[in-house]
Amino acid sequence: METLHISSTQNPRIKHLMALQQKAQLRRSEQRIVVEGARELHHCINAGFSVETVIYCPDIFDISSLPISRCEMLEVTPQVYEKIAYRGSTEGVMAIVEPRQLALSDINLGDNPLIVVLEGVEKPGNIGAVLRSADAAHATAVIVCDPLTDLYNPNLIRSSIGAIFTVPCVACSSDECIHFLKENNINILTAQLQDSEPYYNTPMQGATAIVMGTESTGLTNAWRQAATAHIRIPMQGALDSLNVSVSTAILLFEAVRQRVT
Amino acid sequence: METLHISSTQNPRIKHLMALQQKAQLRRSEQRIVVEGARELHHCINAGFSVETVIYCPDIFDISSLPISRCEMLEVTPQVYEKIAYRGSTEGVMAIVEPRQLALSDINLGDNPLIVVLEGVEKPGNIGAVLRSADAAHATAVIVCDPLTDLYNPNLIRSSIGAIFTVPCVACSSDECIHFLKENNINILTAQLQDSEPYYNTPMQGATAIVMGTESTGLTNAWRQAATAHIRIPMQGALDSLNVSVSTAILLFEAVRQRVT
Repeated sequence: METLHISSTQNPRIKHLMALQQKAQLRRSEQRIVVEGARELHHCINAGFSVETVIYCPDIFDISSLPISRCEMLEVTPQVYEKIAYRGSTEGVMAIVEPRQLALSDINLGDNPLIVVLEGVEKPGNIGAVLRSADAAHATAVIVCDPLTDLYNPNLIRSSIGAIFTVPCVACSSDECIHFLKENNINILTAQLQDSEPYYNTPMQGATAIVMGTESTGLTNAWRQAATAHIRIPMQGALDSLNVSVSTAILLFEAVRQRVT
Repeated sequence: METLHISSTQNPRIKHLMALQQKAQLRRSEQRIVVEGARELHHCINAGFSVETVIYCPDIFDISSLPISRCEMLEVTPQVYEKIAYRGSTEGVMAIVEPRQLALSDINLGDNPLIVVLEGVEKPGNIGAVLRSADAAHATAVIVCDPLTDLYNPNLIRSSIGAIFTVPCVACSSDECIHFLKENNINILTAQLQDSEPYYNTPMQGATAIVMGTESTGLTNAWRQAATAHIRIPMQGALDSLNVSVSTAILLFEAVRQRVT
């Protein structure tokens, strides 16, 4: 285990790290992502991802708490860490990791799949929050259709608290996803206000995909037409929508409830 | 209806507005809050709050869309609006409003109350997100115990999308709240991992308060001891917690489901 010490924010390794944090294009071309935070990194390591380099500040983070060996170590000063920390994190550890690009065919459907599909959801923070709920509900997979962000956006990783590493997550087109679900006889429940039933009246015990669109425009017609059933969360107040991560959690845990009770 | 035109960021009215946005102490002493955003302001006006001054940028916002009269109007330039806008909002409208400080005795319990209690929740964004779900579930009230933020924090207002104005919201101590709930024969369901039943096995058809603590430390003993039942959302994945606003929504909508089905 090699350890380099870096005390300059102008060090080329530090500049490269920051470019990886900021540029989706670079993450794609180099097939490397940046994972920040102790919890996130634990989940990443436990899920068997390949860690190339750990960057940490010994003044803030106890490196012996990380269950890892055989990777390059960069020890940085508090000044350097402050420069590279995303949104003022004070955890003192991050890593450069090889991402996994899963395809639909990589999903292990098991005997009774419960899948979340997100179409066109824009904010990385919302996708991360959905992944966190999907982990808690032990969902089979999260499929992000026509994504407007890459799955390893730093904001997505942070808001998922590492669930991006524990839940199988696939990016593909809506057409591919619809084809996949139909081919595997998975019921398609689309969340939509029009022509829909309250979600708690809809059976979710069988193979189920819960399909969510954006808060502003909802789902595209392709999904509405492909649906087995249209479901809605009745809105009983003055506001007209819930946050997409909250709606997804309500529907996902209704499926969990129906499956155990 | 008087309209003032302001083109300088150094204008004393603009400086005072920014102080109101930033300082809870000033909001308290002057009994004035700042409401930013078109949706938020609509909910605030519809709920009958008293609007003192509307500040808007005519280049961005169409003031005729706001259902309001008889208040002072400050028309500002795009440069001034950019200065006062919170977190880069581009909606172009905000207002100075008189807040309401509700007490427990102001809550109209109706015939079958459904109440959310938050103890010690730190992030204004989380409280706002809970209010948004409480609006959708038509909860009777949200009670924030021992709050670490004021209820009219700009971040809270924004993340609630205005639900802070549509849902009765009370701040008090945990002791006062426990006393109030017991006095009114409202079942106290505390969310906690230890000594608890899965939430879907717990009846919520009757008068119910769902009590949530912080993600990090949970609820205090006073609440655990006051509880009618302890409930948990079973965590079936690798992560050990859900976001408090997501947990609250799952529990709240389970109560809704039980009450209608």
